Amino acid sequence: MPVLVMKFGGTSVATLDRIRRAAKRVGVEVAKGYDVIVIVSAMSGKTNELVGWVNEISPLYDAREYDAVVSSGENITAGLMALTLQEMNVPARSWQGWQVPLMTNSAHSSARIEEIPTDNLNAKFGEGMRVAVVAGFQGISPEGRITTLGRGGSDTTAVAFAAAFGAERCDIYTDVDGVYTTDPRISSKARKLDKIAFEEMLELASLGAKVLQTRSVELAMRYNVRLRVLSSFEEQSDDAGTLVCAEEEIMESNVVSGIAYSRDEAKMTLISVADRPGIAAAIFGPLSEAGVNVDMIIQNIAEEGRTDMTFSCPTDQVKRAEKALEEAKENGDINYHDLVADTDVAKISAVGIGMRSQSGVAAKMFKTLSDEGVNIKVIATSEIKISVLVDRKYMELAVQALHDAFELDKAA
Amino acid sequence: MPVLVMKFGGTSVATLDRIRRAAKRVGVEVAKGYDVIVIVSAMSGKTNELVGWVNEISPLYDAREYDAVVSSGENITAGLMALTLQEMNVPARSWQGWQVPLMTNSAHSSARIEEIPTDNLNAKFGEGMRVAVVAGFQGISPEGRITTLGRGGSDTTAVAFAAAFGAERCDIYTDVDGVYTTDPRISSKARKLDKIAFEEMLELASLGAKVLQTRSVELAMRYNVRLRVLSSFEEQSDDAGTLVCAEEEIMESNVVSGIAYSRDEAKMTLISVADRPGIAAAIFGPLSEAGVNVDMIIQNIAEEGRTDMTFSCPTDQVKRAEKALEEAKENGDINYHDLVADTDVAKISAVGIGMRSQSGVAAKMFKTLSDEGVNIKVIATSEIKISVLVDRKYMELAVQALHDAFELDKAA
Repeated sequence: MPVLVMKFGGTSVATLDRIRRAAKRVGVEVAKGYDVIVIVSAMSGKTNELVGWVNEISPLYDAREYDAVVSSGENITAGLMALTLQEMNVPARSWQGWQVPLMTNSAHSSARIEEIPTDNLNAKFGEGMRVAVVAGFQGISPEGRITTLGRGGSDTTAVAFAAAFGAERCDIYTDVDGVYTTDPRISSKARKLDKIAFEEMLELASLGAKVLQTRSVELAMRYNVRLRVLSSFEEQSDDAGTLVCAEEEIMESNVVSGIAYSRDEAKMTLISVADRPGIAAAIFGPLSEAGVNVDMIIQNIAEEGRTDMTFSCPTDQVKRAEKALEEAKENGDINYHDLVADTDVAKISAVGIGMRSQSGVAAKMFKTLSDEGVNIKVIATSEIKISVLVDRKYMELAVQALHDAFELDKAA
Repeated sequence: MPVLVMKFGGTSVATLDRIRRAAKRVGVEVAKGYDVIVIVSAMSGKTNELVGWVNEISPLYDAREYDAVVSSGENITAGLMALTLQEMNVPARSWQGWQVPLMTNSAHSSARIEEIPTDNLNAKFGEGMRVAVVAGFQGISPEGRITTLGRGGSDTTAVAFAAAFGAERCDIYTDVDGVYTTDPRISSKARKLDKIAFEEMLELASLGAKVLQTRSVELAMRYNVRLRVLSSFEEQSDDAGTLVCAEEEIMESNVVSGIAYSRDEAKMTLISVADRPGIAAAIFGPLSEAGVNVDMIIQNIAEEGRTDMTFSCPTDQVKRAEKALEEAKENGDINYHDLVADTDVAKISAVGIGMRSQSGVAAKMFKTLSDEGVNIKVIATSEIKISVLVDRKYMELAVQALHDAFELDKAA
């Protein structure tokens, strides 16, 4: 029988009533003839409670024990969901990570999935099980210890199962009803997309649209797993939500698919850096080692052997970045006059695979912002994305103006 | 290094502070040179919450899923305890049932332990681990599913580990500070026993002294595991609590060691049963099949081919017993005039291994009750126990009078 993967996040299984509602959705798919693999998160709030306990006991906790504790929430939901399905006469069985087994490496708290053997589940499907309810977010290391995949790891679990079992689709049930052209809280004209390409979703996810974990989209793209994002709080038709899929499945699309933003970017400038070959490595090496996620980088033209170097990073990593750079200066690895951090900026990005074949997107973006009197502080581009840093006070204005300029309220 | 098993019940690990207190006790034993196996229950209330959810979803739940859900509480405590010990610089590691593995049969929700291979834990002890924190109450079936041992199963887990690892002792930390000659709430003269024989503890446990699960005492007796019951809420010396051990370790003891009682007994009488060979089997067979735990049985002298048959069973099984007997009557398997249930009785028992060698205990018991005007309704005896059923209103009086008569407030 064809296999379908369905994933329910924390808010979708927060109470027994919601678990029942989710189970009904599963029942609908079983009735259509699918063997279903359901991936569940912990009931919302549970994981935070467990994490809180661990932190209270041991701020510098052993990640192996952290994983053993925080993975419990998903186990509970998996058992409760299996019971709920059985009560609806759907043959179901719960599976903890080690029972599948979902094999990972030993990087506790942020483990990578290495393999999902299909034998155990397929044997049970062969015996009449119609639904395997799998605890998300967790696996087992080569040492036989429980691992977790990092926060939001249940999305990744779902995609990995879809890939391993050649599922027809991977439906991600969540508390929003799809992927929008921009945040509806910022622009009332935001429109739900029927389809979006993996690459676009990746850019949007990494830019702060928190619908899907970035890793899960990467994995879906690599294995060409069709992902559907939809709401668990509404009655759903077969074409509800947003399908995240390969470009080839998308016949027509706007040049720009969405406008994303991130409030948590900071702009840092090293003033008057002694310019020499290898200076970029000398700056960004220490930042990388300190765990600073540098996003955009620009370097001014050098004058008299000195240059300014500007980069952006998440606001909460500014302190760490400053420390790393000051140490590098003390060690004599780099030389600069001053280090200036501007935490009052926001990043706005236009994303769309259409940019590959159509020029003029950047020009239109810059002109739109200029017309609104929004000053651009940093620009970065990729094949399907243009990002700018602007003063944070212009963020909403910039998003709305760009959404209008690229006519995202209208379907392609 | 010698091995010690320490078990902490739900109230002893109910909060992070209590877990810390328990961990300190473990640290004391590690400092003495023991390798310690700690068995933990779920934080008190947790298991009931999980059981409640399962019952709400599915009153006739699948026991496999019940086990998967309710075993989660112990996993959380095990991880938290391991983290707490690590924070105290004690090398500790948590172990879930399947990791040990604690191998059971497939009788979900009331599984029997079949084997505890010592290789995994011993390998880790060899690498420097000083404490293995094991989630109590759970194991793994031959099919690779999680099993649980039934309520209170963590005591049994602890004794089984002590047997498998040849532990010097198995310390059961609980919310009482030992085993008493009777319930201190009923007699202010109740005295804590320093030692008690397995057989006595078994009788007391099955008679309602809820300090230890009966099964754990049976197991301790079979493998001669020295069990110590003590409080996790007091500073403890080396000879604190009560040691449950083989008779041979007890030099001197009173003839009677304790007076137990049970409020939840009912007396049922089948009036005018047609007496014939096999009639007892015809009555008690159906009761057994219906899951009724018959305790005491007496049969009056038959007159004109008819007799009265009286037995006792737990009060909450009366309805089930009535149904089973009425069905047997309808089927023609037995024949009686009337069935009378008296739920207003209590069982009082005097227990002591000294009874084996000393006569007159029963006579003294009957005279004491008679002197107090307490009428005895049913009598049953075993080698080390005499039990009587009396009207419930006399229960406290009977316990106090017997405690005085056998001078249990004085040590042997």
